[in-house]
Amino acid sequence: MTGAPLLIHRATVLPAWLDYNGHMNDANYLMVFGYGLDLFMDRVGIGEEDRKTHEISLYTMQAHLSYVSELHANEPIRVETRVLDFDQKRVVLYYEMFREEALAAGPVAACESMNLHVSTAPVVKSAAFRPESFAAISALADAAKALPPAKYAGRPIAIPRKAAAS
Amino acid sequence: MTGAPLLIHRATVLPAWLDYNGHMNDANYLMVFGYGLDLFMDRVGIGEEDRKTHEISLYTMQAHLSYVSELHANEPIRVETRVLDFDQKRVVLYYEMFREEALAAGPVAACESMNLHVSTAPVVKSAAFRPESFAAISALADAAKALPPAKYAGRPIAIPRKAAAS
Repeated sequence: MTGAPLLIHRATVLPAWLDYNGHMNDANYLMVFGYGLDLFMDRVGIGEEDRKTHEISLYTMQAHLSYVSELHANEPIRVETRVLDFDQKRVVLYYEMFREEALAAGPVAACESMNLHVSTAPVVKSAAFRPESFAAISALADAAKALPPAKYAGRPIAIPRKAAAS
Repeated sequence: MTGAPLLIHRATVLPAWLDYNGHMNDANYLMVFGYGLDLFMDRVGIGEEDRKTHEISLYTMQAHLSYVSELHANEPIRVETRVLDFDQKRVVLYYEMFREEALAAGPVAACESMNLHVSTAPVVKSAAFRPESFAAISALADAAKALPPAKYAGRPIAIPRKAAAS
């Protein structure tokens, strides 16, 4: 398990997650990607018990969502989470969401997040990962190098225009 | 009102919006920024009645959130929304969230979103804005030019490194 490049979370789209367009609401994608973040934290020693014992946590500094295809009620979905980059106290994660029954069709949404490791006492402050966490993150990052490119990562938001039009 | 550069939504952080860190959860920021999007849609003729009458809507294609400072229960907040860019069928919005009682301290969070105008019948398909909407968006974009720069817009997610370290 330790060498697996992806952390996989499965879910089903709940009717309560839809909005007036009849599809899954923007914010609920981020909630579901958050389950991928939970898996990651459990895997690298920042899970619930670790947070209490070591007075640490992982804060999200940025999240960039890309919406590709609509989701409707009761669709089985999965989130695949990988490590894209990291340093002593930061980790960049990349998540793709798929229809469980149409994995080959590619992601219906993606998310990239910048996360900061913190100590939570006496005050919240950025802190280096514990050595066990750093090693686990490093192993996940190495394994992720074998995956297809993270298509929706690293992009700023911009309306594409021909050079002559500006 | 039409000439105001900002659309302002006020809210109070509900206890239900917090997570295990005791602060407002990532996904709920996006939910609150969504109220800014609703204000925008009402203002430019893509509100609830317009969506039904004209069989149109506005879909979020990307959203990039930046988290600056933690929010706790019962804090009064506001979201200020402006138009950053647009073309015939797309609009880029920029939102900043503030503590209502500490506006001068700067935003506690920001969001940039890429939104696509669609016709919803017979199938969902990208569509040019109605002339009334286009004119209203154009007026908001013009007015927004007088605002301070959108500090958290246009950035890709990346761990900053010194050139020599790569």
